[in-house]
This record gives sequence, C-alpha cells and structure tokens, in this order.
Amino acid sequence: MITLFRYNWQVRDEWFAWCREVPEEELTRQRVGGVGSILKTIFHIVDVEQSWIRALQGKPDIEYSFESYSTLARVMELSRHCRAHVEPFVMNWRPDMEHRVLTGTKHDGTPFSYTYGEVLRHVIAHEIHHTGQLSVWAREMGRAPVSANLVGRRLV
Amino acid sequence: MITLFRYNWQVRDEWFAWCREVPEEELTRQRVGGVGSILKTIFHIVDVEQSWIRALQGKPDIEYSFESYSTLARVMELSRHCRAHVEPFVMNWRPDMEHRVLTGTKHDGTPFSYTYGEVLRHVIAHEIHHTGQLSVWAREMGRAPVSANLVGRRLV
Repeated sequence: MITLFRYNWQVRDEWFAWCREVPEEELTRQRVGGVGSILKTIFHIVDVEQSWIRALQGKPDIEYSFESYSTLARVMELSRHCRAHVEPFVMNWRPDMEHRVLTGTKHDGTPFSYTYGEVLRHVIAHEIHHTGQLSVWAREMGRAPVSANLVGRRLV
Repeated sequence: MITLFRYNWQVRDEWFAWCREVPEEELTRQRVGGVGSILKTIFHIVDVEQSWIRALQGKPDIEYSFESYSTLARVMELSRHCRAHVEPFVMNWRPDMEHRVLTGTKHDGTPFSYTYGEVLRHVIAHEIHHTGQLSVWAREMGRAPVSANLVGRRLV
C-alpha cells in the first residue's frame, strides 16, 4: 500500500515538472472528461487524498476551493503542504488498521460505512485513474505524457 | 493487493457491459492517446496482465496479437480465459513472494531485474491508468464512463 502511495507521489511530481514546460493557459483550459482541466485534476487529486486521510485520522474536513489554488505554483504548494500531513499517516499504516470502520455521510446525504483498508485503496486508485486522464489530454496537446510505469522506479 | 486486482476485474467487467451498449465501430475507432482505441486498450490490459503473471510463474510468454482479438466478443473471451490463469496466482499470493526477483530482457534489449512485489503493483497501476484513459474517451463520445470508485464495492 505504501509503495503505491510513493508511486503516486513520484508520478505527481513528474506531472508537476511536465506542467512547468506547458503554457499556463493550457493547464487551465477546459477539456472533455474528468474534472475538466489539467490543473483542476491535479488539485482534485491532492484535495481528495488529504480529505480521506483526515477522515481516517478523525480530523475535521478542510474544504479547499480550486478558485484559491488556480495556478500551478499554488497547486504545487498545496500538494507539498498536504503531503506533509498525509505521508506520516501512510508511513505508519499497520495491518490491524485495515478493518477499522469509517462512517460518514456522502454529498447526497446518504450514510456510508467503509473500512480503512477500502478507503486507502480508493485513494490510490483515484490518483492513478485521474493521471490516466491527464495522459490522454497530453497526447491531444501533442506532448508525451509522464510514464505510468511502476517497474523500474525502485520503489519497493 | 488482491483487493486491487478484484477491483480491476470488477471495473473491467463493467467496461465490457458499457462496451455492449456502444456501436462496435466506436470501440475500434482510432483515438488520441493510450494504445489508440477502446477495444485495443482493453485487449492491452488483458494481455499485459497475463504476460507479467506468466513471467512471475516462470512460464513461457504467450504473444497475443490484437488482429486475432479485434471484436468485443473475442476480447471478452480472452479476458475470461486469461483471468482463469491469473486469478489462482493472485489469490495464492503470499507476503514472502514480495522480494523474489524476476529478471528478463526488455523490448529494447536491455536487461531488467524487478521484485515480484514491484511487478504485481505495476500490473495493478497499469490497468487503472488505462481505464482512466477510457473514461476521457467515453466523455468525448458523450457517454458517462464506468465509475472508478473503489469504496462501496464491498471488495475488502
């Protein structure tokens, strides 16, 4: 599990480096699919990760708004800030936390009950899914995307 | 790890159901990004999964060619066939297999050396990444994609 988080963080940093080579208006341009733009997608990845991890920690939710983080520099700053809180939790994950239960209410008002293990895997899959979307948009812009390969990164 | 494989298989079956609602020429239409079409992407996911798992099992590689699996029915058949071989291996995964080493040669002729744990996570990330691409193409076609949510699937 920790390896997949480290994979996602490394890939995210590579996408940040990729973004620095692209005109800012391309990053905020509205696109079809996902949450609508490259920058908004990375913001969304960061936001969803911190939100779930805070929930697992029993901390109150922080609602970040994209309007306050609408430049590459601001999203990178938010990512750094949030990772400093998320990373210690992930690194201290123990197998006995797997079956703890998180309860709450979805946006539509219905209650949910998920195990901590389920939430952690959801966060992992969420980021990989959205970076898959970025890779299509990159090609549509005529640019090579960041590699999604996990092998060869020496993460394990 | 097993949960993430089960997630991918469930999501893949949902994409197959999604594909059945779409005209076949839309599935084989050349698109920008990824491996080029919806059907080719799902074929590629199936092929890469079986290829790595066979390698971990020490079995000789089977090279499937998309030309022989270029209809939805054929790709679904291949997926079922390969899963029957992959699933027992994944289900019998033990933590002590994590650090075993797989060596081989990449397509470009350079040698590689990856741990089994690294390969298993690569296969997981590979499928999620490519289904993220499918989700953009679905929206470009004006159709809602399959949900990528892991929570609520009761997989853990």
